[in-house]
Amino acid sequence: MKLRRKILLGTIAVAGLLSIAGPAFAQEETPEPVALLGTQVNLLWVVIGAVLVVFMQAGFALVETGFCRAKHAAHVVSTNFAIFGLGFVGFFILGYGLMFGGYSLPLIGLDNAPGENFIGSGHWVFLWKGGFGLTDLNGPGGAALAGFFLYMVAFMDTVATIPTGAMAERWQWKNFVLWGFFCGAIYYPLFGAWTWGGGWLSQLGNSAHLGVGYVDFAGSGVVHTMGGVAALAGAKVIGPRIGKFKDGKARALPGHHIPMAMLGTFILLFGWFGFNAASTFAVTDVQFAVVATNTAVAGAFGAVVSMLFVMWRTGKPDPGMMANGMLAGLVAITAPCAFVDPISSAIIGSVAGVLVVLAISFVENVLKLDDPVGAIAVHGVNGSFGVLAVGLFANGKYGAGWNVTTEGKGAELSGVTGIFHNFGDGIGQLAAQAIALAVLWTVMMGLAFVFFKLSNLITPIRSKEEDELVGLDLPEMGVLAYPEFSGHGGFN
Amino acid sequence: MKLRRKILLGTIAVAGLLSIAGPAFAQEETPEPVALLGTQVNLLWVVIGAVLVVFMQAGFALVETGFCRAKHAAHVVSTNFAIFGLGFVGFFILGYGLMFGGYSLPLIGLDNAPGENFIGSGHWVFLWKGGFGLTDLNGPGGAALAGFFLYMVAFMDTVATIPTGAMAERWQWKNFVLWGFFCGAIYYPLFGAWTWGGGWLSQLGNSAHLGVGYVDFAGSGVVHTMGGVAALAGAKVIGPRIGKFKDGKARALPGHHIPMAMLGTFILLFGWFGFNAASTFAVTDVQFAVVATNTAVAGAFGAVVSMLFVMWRTGKPDPGMMANGMLAGLVAITAPCAFVDPISSAIIGSVAGVLVVLAISFVENVLKLDDPVGAIAVHGVNGSFGVLAVGLFANGKYGAGWNVTTEGKGAELSGVTGIFHNFGDGIGQLAAQAIALAVLWTVMMGLAFVFFKLSNLITPIRSKEEDELVGLDLPEMGVLAYPEFSGHGGFN
Amino acid sequence: MKLRRKILLGTIAVAGLLSIAGPAFAQEETPEPVALLGTQVNLLWVVIGAVLVVFMQAGFALVETGFCRAKHAAHVVSTNFAIFGLGFVGFFILGYGLMFGGYSLPLIGLDNAPGENFIGSGHWVFLWKGGFGLTDLNGPGGAALAGFFLYMVAFMDTVATIPTGAMAERWQWKNFVLWGFFCGAIYYPLFGAWTWGGGWLSQLGNSAHLGVGYVDFAGSGVVHTMGGVAALAGAKVIGPRIGKFKDGKARALPGHHIPMAMLGTFILLFGWFGFNAASTFAVTDVQFAVVATNTAVAGAFGAVVSMLFVMWRTGKPDPGMMANGMLAGLVAITAPCAFVDPISSAIIGSVAGVLVVLAISFVENVLKLDDPVGAIAVHGVNGSFGVLAVGLFANGKYGAGWNVTTEGKGAELSGVTGIFHNFGDGIGQLAAQAIALAVLWTVMMGLAFVFFKLSNLITPIRSKEEDELVGLDLPEMGVLAYPEFSGHGGFN
Repeated sequence: MKLRRKILLGTIAVAGLLSIAGPAFAQEETPEPVALLGTQVNLLWVVIGAVLVVFMQAGFALVETGFCRAKHAAHVVSTNFAIFGLGFVGFFILGYGLMFGGYSLPLIGLDNAPGENFIGSGHWVFLWKGGFGLTDLNGPGGAALAGFFLYMVAFMDTVATIPTGAMAERWQWKNFVLWGFFCGAIYYPLFGAWTWGGGWLSQLGNSAHLGVGYVDFAGSGVVHTMGGVAALAGAKVIGPRIGKFKDGKARALPGHHIPMAMLGTFILLFGWFGFNAASTFAVTDVQFAVVATNTAVAGAFGAVVSMLFVMWRTGKPDPGMMANGMLAGLVAITAPCAFVDPISSAIIGSVAGVLVVLAISFVENVLKLDDPVGAIAVHGVNGSFGVLAVGLFANGKYGAGWNVTTEGKGAELSGVTGIFHNFGDGIGQLAAQAIALAVLWTVMMGLAFVFFKLSNLITPIRSKEEDELVGLDLPEMGVLAYPEFSGHGGFN
Repeated sequence: MKLRRKILLGTIAVAGLLSIAGPAFAQEETPEPVALLGTQVNLLWVVIGAVLVVFMQAGFALVETGFCRAKHAAHVVSTNFAIFGLGFVGFFILGYGLMFGGYSLPLIGLDNAPGENFIGSGHWVFLWKGGFGLTDLNGPGGAALAGFFLYMVAFMDTVATIPTGAMAERWQWKNFVLWGFFCGAIYYPLFGAWTWGGGWLSQLGNSAHLGVGYVDFAGSGVVHTMGGVAALAGAKVIGPRIGKFKDGKARALPGHHIPMAMLGTFILLFGWFGFNAASTFAVTDVQFAVVATNTAVAGAFGAVVSMLFVMWRTGKPDPGMMANGMLAGLVAITAPCAFVDPISSAIIGSVAGVLVVLAISFVENVLKLDDPVGAIAVHGVNGSFGVLAVGLFANGKYGAGWNVTTEGKGAELSGVTGIFHNFGDGIGQLAAQAIALAVLWTVMMGLAFVFFKLSNLITPIRSKEEDELVGLDLPEMGVLAYPEFSGHGGFN
Repeated sequence: MKLRRKILLGTIAVAGLLSIAGPAFAQEETPEPVALLGTQVNLLWVVIGAVLVVFMQAGFALVETGFCRAKHAAHVVSTNFAIFGLGFVGFFILGYGLMFGGYSLPLIGLDNAPGENFIGSGHWVFLWKGGFGLTDLNGPGGAALAGFFLYMVAFMDTVATIPTGAMAERWQWKNFVLWGFFCGAIYYPLFGAWTWGGGWLSQLGNSAHLGVGYVDFAGSGVVHTMGGVAALAGAKVIGPRIGKFKDGKARALPGHHIPMAMLGTFILLFGWFGFNAASTFAVTDVQFAVVATNTAVAGAFGAVVSMLFVMWRTGKPDPGMMANGMLAGLVAITAPCAFVDPISSAIIGSVAGVLVVLAISFVENVLKLDDPVGAIAVHGVNGSFGVLAVGLFANGKYGAGWNVTTEGKGAELSGVTGIFHNFGDGIGQLAAQAIALAVLWTVMMGLAFVFFKLSNLITPIRSKEEDELVGLDLPEMGVLAYPEFSGHGGFN
């Protein structure tokens, strides 16, 4: 028998959530009522995970608003608020159907069979099955599909909201609205289809014998790097804020509300457990507990190491860097969280904690880009590190049978393996991860760049200079964030 | 055998949570250990749902405080904080017992049999069983009763907190305290008994052949309209804030903290998944996943459509309207969330997004009522729309066997059905929903009005004029919300 | 057969979570697949509980920052942020291994057998099994161990963060960093080993026939009193803030942000359900629902009674006292939450609501200690009350077989019993609780005192006078919390 468990998540939504995952129940003898209850509990976990990820939007809103200036606060928080709905509507109407089916269509024709297509999973039949607008949710399979959609749409919104940080304080509202729809309908689903939709990157193990193909457990690449490269493209197109660079040197424009930013960081930490641990899609796969712990370990080490690193360099801890250090650790562990030991998570988090400090400086001082909240460094750079970390630290214990078939291999399949665990097995995996990164930083960043350039022709991307100087709140949003606190409208 | 599943929640707490709900386990052959584990998991879901709904109190507190002025901020946030405990104590001591039993007593006498009583479920025996003060929680049935109480008390607190928004910035503390106890002990349990307690509104399918009787899955009517009509009664009795109307025209009194209000909205969105999806009372009824997705869809469309609608009318998005648009979508989907398709949820959310903008204007400019946060429009008007939406959009797939008996009908019972799905079947349902609305806007609003009038005789409802002008914080609460931020005490 | 269920949590992590707890499945006939699914669901509940407790860090951060002054806000919020990682790293590397094994080693030698050792559980073999750095997580037992670690580390962080409140506005950063590591690595694990690690306090039922030994369901003593006595020791060593006492009389230094503090309180309430209700470590033990309800009841009554008590004394409600009243109720119910009736929870919460008001005044006016947020009163005093409340109110229904063996007793073991339920049975339990309290207020407070004194020799505990006067934000953290809100830097 051909043992095969692909990451065809569109199918897994129905099949995977309905069958009990994990080796525990692989035996035939599991009685059906128990298996059924297991799937119901698994679906609950997916929904709870989705709810936690939805709540992360509040975390992004607070982190970005807190790190920006008071005179733009209503604008910044509103972009983070509105993006939830904008991306959601785009994904609901178009993106979900594309991600798990539609993207195969234009390139491979009407090949109904799920399989080894170049792009996307090929099971475009999903189109008829209600991928667009969830128009077919009959039966318990429908409930699983609904829950799976909720989880996926929440991930998409994370991608969509990341550029609002890098482009904050100068992004004209109508142009921003276009980005929201575009990200949910087109941008996120494309790379999503190539990996979680069963597309060509996930198939590199079969097609090119590179490990088990590109593996990204919860989205260091699919979500965070995707958001980070779009943030970089957007920051490049929109240009720096007025006053950010003087004589070619970057000036600090301090955030207006540190406690707000730290609350946001805590909310992100909280939601991240849904992001990562519920990505097992199963309670019956107890690896979720290891994932949760690895996530916390990386976040904690990221925060501590970045704080100590900054103290060592400047003599003082920097609240913003502490927060970004934790987020960097969380971003970096997102891809490898199911495949590594806690000790490796501590190392990954520690590296991320240093890396984010260096990357923020690099973006600002070398690339000369203005990223008010450090989104490129946190999500782009550390997301990329997380993608590579799978190929470095994966311990070979988890993920056996994913993506690849037994054909042409021995009867036994190993789990996802990195070079630190087994160099010979790991080098192919590392290569697969590197290929995904190359795609992210060229194709996807290019796509985002082109979008921002084109959208600028429809409606200007950059706010008017006088609006930016006085603060975007009143001219763009019609209200001030804090009409009664004097000092508002600041001096920076 | 008489197939019958009533919404006698007082009984369901013990019986329903202990038996596995949903068709999956309806067969006799489910082994007992599996069924037991299923009930335990179901109880977990109810408790998690309750915890999420409890957290919504924080969301209300932030939305209302953010939309009010800084000089009243400690007062507004404190009403939202204190109401949690005040309503809770009233419901714990009196309301819970009344809702699931006691309200039957005075009208129907000592009829022990659960059943077709005019008001309430009639199983007053619940009184002896610890409805008041939860004095009888022995055995696993007791644990279910405890968990069910927690879920119910959290819903009650949502009702209680809604008027604090409409009556904000001018409600004298001691009078407010009376409302808290009254709502928890008397007001909420009455309409609650008539619907979720198995009372006459839920029996309209049997008594008057109107669909399956009044159906309100998670409380667009029982919770939100109940809160909204009380808010209207309170706003009428207490009168507008000083300076709100000038020469008969309403003036804008802008909220002091937009990010706070948006964080509150996100917290409400987060908690709403517990509000709606855990209202299945069961993980074994996988409809909870459809409910969660429908909830998110309506909230997202509500936010987007209200934003676009305001942009179309004024050229600028309004952060407050975005937030209220999302809340309106969530309120409107609360009754129909289990009975409609995602596409219908998108429509319901979109309508709510427009409706809330119009209703806020109507309340202010036509009714000449001062509702600082838009509570009447969000909860009252959109709650009512949600109640009707069941009779419009319900797809007939869910809810078969609720409330009504098979007697006098064919062997097969259909699910809850709206007129857009089947006009003939739906018209009765729509009538039942309309009757519930009529009761809400007459009997319940009248009861709230009488309470506010009477309570005003005990201790004044309206703050002193000089206190209101300087801000209620210092004179009523003894502290300022922000003693160090100048501008506090504002100019409005 | 020797019936025996010890609170050897290090073992329970593997054994307890993997076997289905609770009487429901005690029978042999539970089929293995059902039992396995039960353990998986139980592990999920532990992980969800851990995530909720992790989020409580945000609650502490907001409560403490809101109750402090604006000029220190970045410092206060940063201590609460950084402590999460600092304590975590200490616990990950050292504390977890010590708590569930290591603390036995120095005193009892290499006794491999778990058992009746004076200190700690004695199963030091846990050292080899990955207690330090979680280096051994193979198999499903590993997943349980990982999930259990996450729950425990979150509890530890609560202890670690409590002193940041009592020592706020004057604690030098580097000294604070030492505390974070010390608490996670050494301080918390010691008392933790004596109770939850199966050590001598938990064995008082066997060794001294005092009830079932010291029982603390979710940590009124192990967590809150531990934090409270460290807070008292720290406040004593660090001395009062400049300007707090004038001519020997305490002056009020009002908090700068009431809504922030109230949001923090709501977040703590939210997270507390994970703290208490998930301490069953099992969904299959439905007592979790009773625990959740008892927790809410005590919090609600604490908030209401403290508000009414303050209104009675001063004529006005005090927002800070409302918040502390709720927290006091929650702290007090934490130890007894599984052992008492809801009515008892209402009484415990009510007493706590009064006690906290009196205790805050006592700490300030009698002890002449400066505790900006009331941490000593809330956590130390009410934690102690909670520990005693077990010996007063426990109803004998839950906890049979814990800690004690049947040897020398009848075949039947009673649950945890307090003197109000049965004076004869309860007096031993009350004595065990009192002994634990005595240890907390002497040994543990002494240890904290010695640590703060010694750490002060390494790097000063007290901020420089000029930094404190201008606010710690700029001199210690390098940034202002609110650089744009004038009034910042205040006058107090």
